[in-house]
Amino acid sequence: MLAPAAVTTDQRYAIPESMQAWVLGDPGQLMLKRKPVPVPNKAEVLIRIDAVAICATDLDNIYYGPPALIEGGLPFNKNWTPGHEYMGTVVALGPGVDEFAIGQRVACEIHAGCGQCKRCRQGMYTSCHNYGMNYGAHDKGHRANGFTTDGGFCEYQVNHINTLARIADDMPDEVGALVVTAGTAMYALTELGGLVAGESVAVIGLGPIGLLVAAVAKALGASPVIAADIADNRLEIARKLGADHVVNVRNIDAVEAVHKLNGGEGVDYAVECSAAPDAVNTAVHMVNRGGKVCLAAFLHEKVAVDIAHVVKNNIYLYGIRGEGKSSTHRAEALMRQKRFDAGLIHTHTFALEDLPTAISYAKNHTDNAIKVVVKARGVARIGVAAE
Amino acid sequence: MLAPAAVTTDQRYAIPESMQAWVLGDPGQLMLKRKPVPVPNKAEVLIRIDAVAICATDLDNIYYGPPALIEGGLPFNKNWTPGHEYMGTVVALGPGVDEFAIGQRVACEIHAGCGQCKRCRQGMYTSCHNYGMNYGAHDKGHRANGFTTDGGFCEYQVNHINTLARIADDMPDEVGALVVTAGTAMYALTELGGLVAGESVAVIGLGPIGLLVAAVAKALGASPVIAADIADNRLEIARKLGADHVVNVRNIDAVEAVHKLNGGEGVDYAVECSAAPDAVNTAVHMVNRGGKVCLAAFLHEKVAVDIAHVVKNNIYLYGIRGEGKSSTHRAEALMRQKRFDAGLIHTHTFALEDLPTAISYAKNHTDNAIKVVVKARGVARIGVAAE
Amino acid sequence: MLAPAAVTTDQRYAIPESMQAWVLGDPGQLMLKRKPVPVPNKAEVLIRIDAVAICATDLDNIYYGPPALIEGGLPFNKNWTPGHEYMGTVVALGPGVDEFAIGQRVACEIHAGCGQCKRCRQGMYTSCHNYGMNYGAHDKGHRANGFTTDGGFCEYQVNHINTLARIADDMPDEVGALVVTAGTAMYALTELGGLVAGESVAVIGLGPIGLLVAAVAKALGASPVIAADIADNRLEIARKLGADHVVNVRNIDAVEAVHKLNGGEGVDYAVECSAAPDAVNTAVHMVNRGGKVCLAAFLHEKVAVDIAHVVKNNIYLYGIRGEGKSSTHRAEALMRQKRFDAGLIHTHTFALEDLPTAISYAKNHTDNAIKVVVKARGVARIGVAAE
Amino acid sequence: MLAPAAVTTDQRYAIPESMQAWVLGDPGQLMLKRKPVPVPNKAEVLIRIDAVAICATDLDNIYYGPPALIEGGLPFNKNWTPGHEYMGTVVALGPGVDEFAIGQRVACEIHAGCGQCKRCRQGMYTSCHNYGMNYGAHDKGHRANGFTTDGGFCEYQVNHINTLARIADDMPDEVGALVVTAGTAMYALTELGGLVAGESVAVIGLGPIGLLVAAVAKALGASPVIAADIADNRLEIARKLGADHVVNVRNIDAVEAVHKLNGGEGVDYAVECSAAPDAVNTAVHMVNRGGKVCLAAFLHEKVAVDIAHVVKNNIYLYGIRGEGKSSTHRAEALMRQKRFDAGLIHTHTFALEDLPTAISYAKNHTDNAIKVVVKARGVARIGVAAE
Repeated sequence: MLAPAAVTTDQRYAIPESMQAWVLGDPGQLMLKRKPVPVPNKAEVLIRIDAVAICATDLDNIYYGPPALIEGGLPFNKNWTPGHEYMGTVVALGPGVDEFAIGQRVACEIHAGCGQCKRCRQGMYTSCHNYGMNYGAHDKGHRANGFTTDGGFCEYQVNHINTLARIADDMPDEVGALVVTAGTAMYALTELGGLVAGESVAVIGLGPIGLLVAAVAKALGASPVIAADIADNRLEIARKLGADHVVNVRNIDAVEAVHKLNGGEGVDYAVECSAAPDAVNTAVHMVNRGGKVCLAAFLHEKVAVDIAHVVKNNIYLYGIRGEGKSSTHRAEALMRQKRFDAGLIHTHTFALEDLPTAISYAKNHTDNAIKVVVKARGVARIGVAAE
Repeated sequence: MLAPAAVTTDQRYAIPESMQAWVLGDPGQLMLKRKPVPVPNKAEVLIRIDAVAICATDLDNIYYGPPALIEGGLPFNKNWTPGHEYMGTVVALGPGVDEFAIGQRVACEIHAGCGQCKRCRQGMYTSCHNYGMNYGAHDKGHRANGFTTDGGFCEYQVNHINTLARIADDMPDEVGALVVTAGTAMYALTELGGLVAGESVAVIGLGPIGLLVAAVAKALGASPVIAADIADNRLEIARKLGADHVVNVRNIDAVEAVHKLNGGEGVDYAVECSAAPDAVNTAVHMVNRGGKVCLAAFLHEKVAVDIAHVVKNNIYLYGIRGEGKSSTHRAEALMRQKRFDAGLIHTHTFALEDLPTAISYAKNHTDNAIKVVVKARGVARIGVAAE
Repeated sequence: MLAPAAVTTDQRYAIPESMQAWVLGDPGQLMLKRKPVPVPNKAEVLIRIDAVAICATDLDNIYYGPPALIEGGLPFNKNWTPGHEYMGTVVALGPGVDEFAIGQRVACEIHAGCGQCKRCRQGMYTSCHNYGMNYGAHDKGHRANGFTTDGGFCEYQVNHINTLARIADDMPDEVGALVVTAGTAMYALTELGGLVAGESVAVIGLGPIGLLVAAVAKALGASPVIAADIADNRLEIARKLGADHVVNVRNIDAVEAVHKLNGGEGVDYAVECSAAPDAVNTAVHMVNRGGKVCLAAFLHEKVAVDIAHVVKNNIYLYGIRGEGKSSTHRAEALMRQKRFDAGLIHTHTFALEDLPTAISYAKNHTDNAIKVVVKARGVARIGVAAE
Repeated sequence: MLAPAAVTTDQRYAIPESMQAWVLGDPGQLMLKRKPVPVPNKAEVLIRIDAVAICATDLDNIYYGPPALIEGGLPFNKNWTPGHEYMGTVVALGPGVDEFAIGQRVACEIHAGCGQCKRCRQGMYTSCHNYGMNYGAHDKGHRANGFTTDGGFCEYQVNHINTLARIADDMPDEVGALVVTAGTAMYALTELGGLVAGESVAVIGLGPIGLLVAAVAKALGASPVIAADIADNRLEIARKLGADHVVNVRNIDAVEAVHKLNGGEGVDYAVECSAAPDAVNTAVHMVNRGGKVCLAAFLHEKVAVDIAHVVKNNIYLYGIRGEGKSSTHRAEALMRQKRFDAGLIHTHTFALEDLPTAISYAKNHTDNAIKVVVKARGVARIGVAAE
């Protein structure tokens, strides 16, 4: 790292000038390269990345590009590094930063809002109106590492202090990498949804977000919490994380099952995490009059929605694209208190150099993979590097 | 009226034992009959109906039945009276009622919640979980006159006091019948939407609700207010009611126009009142990141929605089915202060006996009809009664 | 009970025509009498009272009369029965009630709003504008058993179904009687306060409400939770209920201690439950800029408040007088899930006939009494009845 | 101005290197000096100050110092310039600013939050936890011009773009200087208070904020709006601004009058702007059960408050210290639409050099002065400069 005087470092953490980093070539092509270690500016710190998880949207980003207009033709063949679910250790402080100390372990939110647009001024920084405006003369300060700026499939990254949540000393790296996923579940349920204890929740699709929606809902006192999926192993994990009831939708009708399990009534909240073709309607019909539906899955095509039912029943739908309103801090508070064991959804760890293998496991659910993590240190290589 | 001792009457208002009332036969068939004048119970009053407007949902109700499961096979051939947008004069008080006095003119909300379910206890009585449960042993007190109980195409009706909003002395009957329509617009924008002055609003479809959404938005200080429709006469009325800009979507792309008129950005709120096939997507693409879309139009089929755009942009959608949270009182407060002239959307008045003609005008937009009102008194018959 | 045909009973629960009931004579004087068992009307049930706890406000009510203007000179020498923290078993159903079944065990909220005033229509039934209007011609349906209508120091009472929360089968009666107290804590923190996991809370004064504020705050994921009192035994219970830190304010300055324990900053919420003379200011200075102060203790005199500090720091203060917004259901949901052991604050049980002894224990903290319960059945008399 | 390359200027606006500026000497002593024209950084612009109004808190600041701990001994004898209610013209843009153009007229909010603390991340930047932290190594970016950083009693000032609201072309400078005052009223009523049309409002104390509370409340559709003061000329202005009723509290009891004027009930909102000794209690007793009291006046001593009444009646109190949540934009939207004439409260204009005379008018209400404005250009000097 080229360390200007105003950057604070610490001899415990020697920072090299360059690092290993995966970069995106053509769609679907990842290459391991060397890049300079980035330098933190005002209100930023340098993070040594200790663990980075693979998210379904990483696969989208690697194949289709991330969902934002990015100046200059990013991401393909522009030396761009994907990866957005990472945690690490603060190893250098930008000028004036005293909110964090070198050596602290932190989870890293994805979105750093510009702080200047209407939504950021409302505290809705995930909906920043300058999303993706972070290059050259148009740099408004927005950052979404792994979406619009370099991400975490490398050794070091710079983060704005607003994106950081301290994690408990006894929280393993692999679990720390899931804090933002839990923060997304939290945001869906409380900050946006307004869930209070005793309300009923159904979740459709038990990927990592869906599983943590079940866990966070239960930790917040929701009752009953009903989880639906097609895979029995995932239903079993949902139950361990706190779901009161699980429904295998291969065998039975999800809407009917939810009504039956909730005393003959629709639930107060349904969270759609499956991206299945008719899942939006399933969710809409799962909730009661005045209920809320959170749409957390990215879809690639328009889907037919029973809008008449939405209108007649005063139903709310709201989309989320990740965490928000500092929900990550709240999720970490629950995890620190051991309200649920997020580690249950972590299934595999690979060396950073084995990212392609890791991605293959995540994509194909190899060996029942759910959350697959890569680490730059302390994990033996088992695969063969790409290139 | 069979007046038990506990009902308070007043000699100024002689109440007959029976009245004229339209009743629904087969789908699409209305018949003028005599019915007993109903009697108010505890917390209810008897309203002499002075004006009743025809709503698009009346047409739905008459042809398809209202959108609720009603015990006993209502509405067809069950002596049921439709009509839900009415105002009138309080002419008798149920036992213990002192909140209203005989002689007061009132607008009548549609929904009287049960007061006992979860939603009613939250103040969301329009989303009552006992909707339609108002017969026999299962009577939970819910009433939606003109949907699940007898409505306003007659001379007298009983209303729960919670459904009543006093109207200004100088407000004409025809305008008073629009207070609930304005209350629906208010509910969409403020109680559910959270609109504050200075935010931007687009409205799609300038039927009575759409026109009053434009009027109420402007009265609340929204800026800019953009109204879109295919009829120039309606765009002209929108402008008179307060729209800053109007867009004829026959000629230009609505989404593009709205962005251009709002300084290159999407608006904060879009209210879909058109029921046009792709209008939900039009609305979704009109709003900015974090924006809100209110769905106020009833549709009869599923429509394809760009859910990916909703998710990526943290957009909220919420359905409304009429007024709520006492929004009618707030709408009346604005109308009393002459913030807009709701009378601009009233185009025709017919005698109660001419209801079929009135419905024909409303359905076919005959003579540029927008809001068509029928009155039991003071209007000469011009048509020929149905059957 | 005089059981009209429309009241549903069950042979498992034989209901007598009269019952034992304590009634208030002169201020401070309680007498055990026989009263008729009351009869449930529409939307009401008859509760067999299985346990009733003594609250500090009971002492106020018995000595000063409850804080409401009640028509007809209530409460002194009017045959009025106090007692408002009770639970029991549903033993008869009023006409049309099918929301509850005979034999169900329930906790009973105090406040049944009129359902017709502005606040009730907003869901704020504890702030009912017809509070105390429940006699004769002015009966608007408001009930606050133990405050404005007969309460629970007797064998049976009638409750509106809106006041009932089902309790878990394995919840002891004595704990069930605390559900409403926990509901009050819940209302203070979430429905009114907006607390979300990870926020910091200080509570001043560890009576039953204060202790359950600490418990509920922790159960909701608040962090840190700091409890302050002058009694070490209560601080110890607070810790067992979930407080992260306890402060004995006899020895150290509460404001200073809270800042120190919260990383040098004021907390997000302070809940004042002590009624100590300067406690409002203590609470005001405990919170950070933009923080919230809940006032839960009844005071008998004006207190000097540092309003300048409130203004300069955008601080919110809000009073609560018990539960609200169905918070009791949410509290029960947490207790059912065993998030904290409310039984820790229950210290003594007496027979109903020994109420004066029970009150003396509660008033004088005899034998470190915290929550003292009386039961009409299953507890041997140890004292001597009044009269 | 020392203009670095990255600052954009325009030949229409020649910017001198130094300017006239009032600075604070000992308490109460103001001196006219020359200071360098400041230079805008990233996300900042340079404002040519066209009008600056005198606020009651200016007098407090000049005599007692502003209510914040400021490092380095500010404000006395530190060359500090007070003045915080100003508007002007954008004359230079800091690096990367394209949100505003040179030549635009803007009103300037006081508070620029740090953007990094908990409150700023919630959108509550007026409650910034780094308030006053804006010097040297501890500079967290918070600015409150005229409170913790140099203010507006001079010719030019630098403002963060988040503090700026464009004003209408036809809005006079003197009215533009009141936009932030109206924004404070807006914040009290809507963003914090949640006022919706049709709710009732009483305001106590008709200084500029109180008068604009009446105006904004009416513009938002509140009904009735009741204004109380001891000066008939101010009551008359309140009426012109929209108050439905005015009460001279010299002659009649304010609480009684408000209940009578509101149909026998307390109002939904009371806004205390008078700083009179018992005014907090007056406000508390003016509202109905569940009502809200906004405390907008700075007091210098503790006041006795009827907390028991607050608790028993579920009343909310909240302090404000100026605008917030972009309320200034919303206030400007109402003023642009001519919903009320804020110019009615502007009574006097002086030249910048005559600031001491202007302050004397404001302090002593000379010649019925309400809002007194000073301008650096276009106003003939009538007084003699201090020193």
